[in-house]
Parts: sequence; structure tokens; C-alpha cells
Amino acid sequence: MNEIVQKVRAQEPLIHNLTNAVVMNFSANGLLAFGASPIMANAKEDAADVAKLSNGVLINIGTLTEAQLEAMIEAGKAANEAGIPVVIDPVGVAATNFRTEAFQRIVEQVHPDVIKGNAGELAHLVGIELETKGVDAVGEGNSQEIAGKVAVHFQTIAVLTGKVDTVSDGKQTLTNETGHALLSKVTGAGCLLGSIITACLSVEGENLEKAYAAVKYYGMAAAYAASQSGVNGPGTFLPQFLDALTMEPDTLEKGLM
Amino acid sequence: MNEIVQKVRAQEPLIHNLTNAVVMNFSANGLLAFGASPIMANAKEDAADVAKLSNGVLINIGTLTEAQLEAMIEAGKAANEAGIPVVIDPVGVAATNFRTEAFQRIVEQVHPDVIKGNAGELAHLVGIELETKGVDAVGEGNSQEIAGKVAVHFQTIAVLTGKVDTVSDGKQTLTNETGHALLSKVTGAGCLLGSIITACLSVEGENLEKAYAAVKYYGMAAAYAASQSGVNGPGTFLPQFLDALTMEPDTLEKGLM
Amino acid sequence: MNEIVQKVRAQEPLIHNLTNAVVMNFSANGLLAFGASPIMANAKEDAADVAKLSNGVLINIGTLTEAQLEAMIEAGKAANEAGIPVVIDPVGVAATNFRTEAFQRIVEQVHPDVIKGNAGELAHLVGIELETKGVDAVGEGNSQEIAGKVAVHFQTIAVLTGKVDTVSDGKQTLTNETGHALLSKVTGAGCLLGSIITACLSVEGENLEKAYAAVKYYGMAAAYAASQSGVNGPGTFLPQFLDALTMEPDTLEKGLM
Repeated sequence: MNEIVQKVRAQEPLIHNLTNAVVMNFSANGLLAFGASPIMANAKEDAADVAKLSNGVLINIGTLTEAQLEAMIEAGKAANEAGIPVVIDPVGVAATNFRTEAFQRIVEQVHPDVIKGNAGELAHLVGIELETKGVDAVGEGNSQEIAGKVAVHFQTIAVLTGKVDTVSDGKQTLTNETGHALLSKVTGAGCLLGSIITACLSVEGENLEKAYAAVKYYGMAAAYAASQSGVNGPGTFLPQFLDALTMEPDTLEKGLM
Repeated sequence: MNEIVQKVRAQEPLIHNLTNAVVMNFSANGLLAFGASPIMANAKEDAADVAKLSNGVLINIGTLTEAQLEAMIEAGKAANEAGIPVVIDPVGVAATNFRTEAFQRIVEQVHPDVIKGNAGELAHLVGIELETKGVDAVGEGNSQEIAGKVAVHFQTIAVLTGKVDTVSDGKQTLTNETGHALLSKVTGAGCLLGSIITACLSVEGENLEKAYAAVKYYGMAAAYAASQSGVNGPGTFLPQFLDALTMEPDTLEKGLM
Repeated sequence: MNEIVQKVRAQEPLIHNLTNAVVMNFSANGLLAFGASPIMANAKEDAADVAKLSNGVLINIGTLTEAQLEAMIEAGKAANEAGIPVVIDPVGVAATNFRTEAFQRIVEQVHPDVIKGNAGELAHLVGIELETKGVDAVGEGNSQEIAGKVAVHFQTIAVLTGKVDTVSDGKQTLTNETGHALLSKVTGAGCLLGSIITACLSVEGENLEKAYAAVKYYGMAAAYAASQSGVNGPGTFLPQFLDALTMEPDTLEKGLM
């Protein structure tokens, strides 16, 4: 993990985020803190051009509109053609027909290197129905089975987030237990993780390992931030979390001992 | 008030926010802190589906576009049909013809359980002209008269915010003096209150009482946050305010004694 | 500078921001902290009406769409006609044809009182090609030459931001060295400066002097915030920076001695 985080910071990859309107600011600040460089272009007129300039493309359907969907597909196709990694976060995909169909339209035209979501979202993608509440999963089901099926079906790396995170390429499955409950009280915590995974994918290495490094580092940063003095809730957690995303893995680890 | 806040926290209602782009992140974080679950869907393709899944719908016209207006009407109609509470925040309704007419189009098709605004906005809705500056009121006029007229005219609960907040169902009028001047230095403070009122409306009880509880609690949280050490302005106030929104009414009250 | 900042605070100008979706919340909070009053209306239906109500219009193309571009042109033309200052921030203008052409469409119809950008953006406007990375400049080139050419070509004040900021009316060129490295780790730091410049332009005085005052004050606030105890990165910097934007120039200066 250490090496992957170092590479990101050395290369400062430009990450094109086609993401939801709720989290744009937080995702941009989180990427900057982590050592990447965010860019966001949601117009179909230039989403593909920006994708070609970038080192990674994140597609997050959290506040999808038809216009943004077109831009996402243009950007994703351009990234696929140029060999630039693409991460899809199917936020609320099970919640409405519009989102379910939009996801299908995207994956028919864009190959994702990683699909990241919670248990309810990923389960829905492979026909397993779990209870959901809005865009949030209720319970985690059989995470390893779900992640494995998503990885095989979409020929991708599946990242299933929850109390325990599961990362799978369909053959190998890794689990991660870093993290902190305050993350679930911060809007866009999952969305920013999608951006951080995209940043990690942009450097050399195996996708499974890079996705796992992102998830592990992210959870460590959350735990470190939550342990800082003065943190009494989600509001005081947020500034510390952005600071933690700038830190070396070693620093986070020592701070948690 | 205590009981209403407890119920929200026990039920974690899903609140669908069709709100302005400036405050989406703050509103989502504020709802999470308060114990509700935010969702935002502004596409006409799925705004109604999300409304049906939700426990309350907030409509805030602060950065209205024609496309969002259609989504708001779809979501509001679906909520009315399903008996889900609807709150309308007519931000800047007096500022432009587009907003004035948009509000009319909404209330012709959607019945609001609460209309929340400042004195200038609410006065405009019932033909009383007050001086306004952009989206902000200048002075508060005769708040009780204005709130009462709005409540009667729209058969709703009127929440008029200001130094003193006025909550009226047209017969009974309650006033609230909790709050803090720093709230007026934070963008979206009024908008998030609209979301918090929507969360409170989603639990059992009388609408007048629930709206009043939201307003009173919100002001107490602001005063508590402002009293924390290290708060020297709007920037340091914000993290403390989100933390305060997680707290028990009793804790806030004791902290203010 | 002192006098200009005082005038803004006395007049609380209403600043209409047609800006990118990433920074709307931060720009609004920053303007409020500084003593101005933000408003944002991106619909072509009311962007011009809001511009006429305002004391200054900021146009920032950071997440441009065709619909927003129309609103920007309407707002800019209305402001020009009414003698209200207009600032253009051509974010990423060199990155895509869509943005390059959009900027041309704007300046064919709207006269900017200030054009603010980084070296790569401003260089592009006058046919000097510098290396850029996404929306960020790599190096600063010959800032004084670039700023001077922009000022002459567009008959405007050019504000070129970087480690050293350059402000030019084509005849006179001022440089500013206030600032702090953490600003470059905060998304929208440049965008908010555009809004603060717009606020300063709205009061009486020479445009060159007012733009320079905004840039100098802004950098002082950043340096002051970075020097506060508890600031260890971009996350803990942000609340202190918003607080610093409320302060008197003298307070900032003393705090930095």
C-alpha cells in the first residue's frame, strides 16, 4: 500500500470526476489532500476531451441527469480507448428505474476497471435483492459472494464497502477492516473513496492491489482523524479527515497504535 | 421538542432534497448529523420515484432551472399522493419573475405542509411588499401578520425565520428566539433548516408542533456551537454546528446555561 | 487596501456568481465572511434579472455547460448595460475547444472589468502557449508580459495568480507576494478570489487598485489562517481561512509579524 500511495503523490494524477453535485467540493478537496489533481467537466461538449487529458475517470451516478449521463458515456468511452482507468460508482442504482437503466447504458458502452458500491448496490447489479434505504444499504448480505459475482460478470474489480470492505477480482478476494463509524455520518465518504481508488488505479501495478490499497489507506485515515483531540462528531471530524489524507501510511499507523 | 427529535433519530427518515446547488453538501451533512438520511435526485426521470421511497420532500428554489422545476413538481405531486410531507422554501421568490412564476406553478400542483422563508419571501407570497436584498430580507416587517396570512392562504404551516422566528397555522402563532448571529454568516443556514423541518414533519404529531420543534432545536444547536471554545467566526463555527446537530436537546440546553 | 475592504463591509455588495458547481458553497461562504452577500442564479430565465439587482457579476467557466453559458452571457450583458462590474475567470480555457470557444463567445458580447486566471489560462488568451495540467498551470512563464498583453488586448485589468500575483492594466503592473502554499491544496481557492475581486470592484475607486487590494488581502488572510494553532493541513486550514476573511487588514498584518 505504501508504495502505491507514494506513486500517486509523485505523479499527481489528474482525475476527471463525473460525480454527483452533493459531493463535488468534498471530492475535489479529498483528492487534493491525497496528492492527486481533480478536474470536473460534465458537459457532453467537453467531457471526452477532459477524459483524454486525465489519468483516470470516475463515474458516479448519485445525482444523475440525462445530460450528465451522456457526458459520462462520452468520457468513459474516451478513457477506454486511451487506456485510462475508469471507476464506476452506481449510487442508488437499485432505487429507481432511471438509475438502473442508466447503469446498463453505461456498462454497455464503457468498461469499468473497478465497480465500487455498497452491498445493496452491488447485489442489485447481479440480481441479488437486498433491502436498501434510499442510497444506503441495510445490512451487508454475503459480501464476498456479491463482490465475486460482480467481478466475474463485469470482468472488473469489485469493491464492496461496509463495516468490512471486500475487494475481489472474481478469483481472489481481499477484506479490509480499517475505517471508522464517523465516515458513515459524512456525506460523500463513499463517493470520495471512489475518487481515491481512481487516483490509485492511475499508477503502475495490479488493479486488485491498487484498489485494495486505496480502501485500506482511506479507512486508516478515517480512524486516525477520528482519534484526534477535539473531534466530537462529524463536523469536527471532517477537517481532521482531510488533513489525514495528506499523511504517510506510516504516520497514520503509528497514530493508531 | 425532545420527543420529536428522539423520534427522528429512532426512525432515520429518508429526506428527498430538491434544493439549490450551493447548499447540497451542507444540507446532506446537516441531515446526517441530525439523524436523518438525505437523498437528492433532480432529474425529472426519477425525482418522483425517489419521492415515493422517501419520508419527506423538500423543495428549495435557490438555484432553480426549468429542468429542476419539472422535477420538483413531479416529486411534490408524488409525495402529496402518497401522504408524504412536503416543505417548500421559496428562496428569492420576490427577486425575479422566473422565481415568482415558478412558485405559482409549484403551489398550483403541489400542496405544501410547510412554507418556510424569510420575511421578504413570505410577505411577497401574500402581496405585502417588503424591501429585500437578493435572497435576503431587510428587516422583518410584521412577522406574525405575514406568517398568519401565508398559513391561511396556502392552508399550510408558515415558518418565518428571522431574529425571532414565527411559526403559524393561521390560528395559533408561536415565536422562537433561539439562534445565533453566526448562522446568518453561513450560506445555506436557512436552507438546511428547511431540510431539518422536513425530517421532523416525517414523524407522528401535529405539524405546527413539529415545525416549531425543528426551529427551536436548530437555534439551540447554533447557540451551543457558537459558545464552543475555538469558535472565532463562521469557519470555525461550521464544524461545531454540525456536531451540535447530533446532540440531545438537553445537552444543548445545559451547555447554554 | 484598508479603505477598499472597509467600503465593501460597509456596503455589503450583492455579488452574482455564475460559477462552477465544485466551489459554489465555498465561494458563498467566503463572500459572506468577507462582508459581501452572495447570490447564484444559473438559469437563462433569470440570470440577467439577478445581475441587474446585483453590485457585481462573476463569470467562472470551471464546470461550464451550454445552458450555463447562455445564462452567463445574459447576465454579463445586463451587467455591462447597467454599469455593474464583471469579472471573468476562464478556468481551464486552454484545456478543451469547448471552453476556448465559450470564452470567445463571452468576450464577444460581454466586456470584463477584470480577467483573472493562472499563467497558463491567461497565456492562452493572448496566444502564448504554456504547459498546463488540467485546470492548473505548470510554472508561471513571464507573468508580467502575459498579464500586460491580456490587459491591453481585452482592455481590462488582468490578474494573474501564482506564487507571485501580477495585476496589470496594460500600463502599470503591480505584483503581490502575500499568500500561502496551503491555498493551492484547497479547491476553489482561485475561484473564491474571483468572487472577492468582484466584491472589491463594486465599491468606488480605480479598478487596478481595487483588484490589487483584493489579491493582497486574500493572500494575507491565507497566511494568517495557516499560522493559527491546530492547522496541520488543508482540512484544518479551511475553517481558519473563512474566519480570517472576516478580519481587519490590520489584524491580519499584526498576526503575521
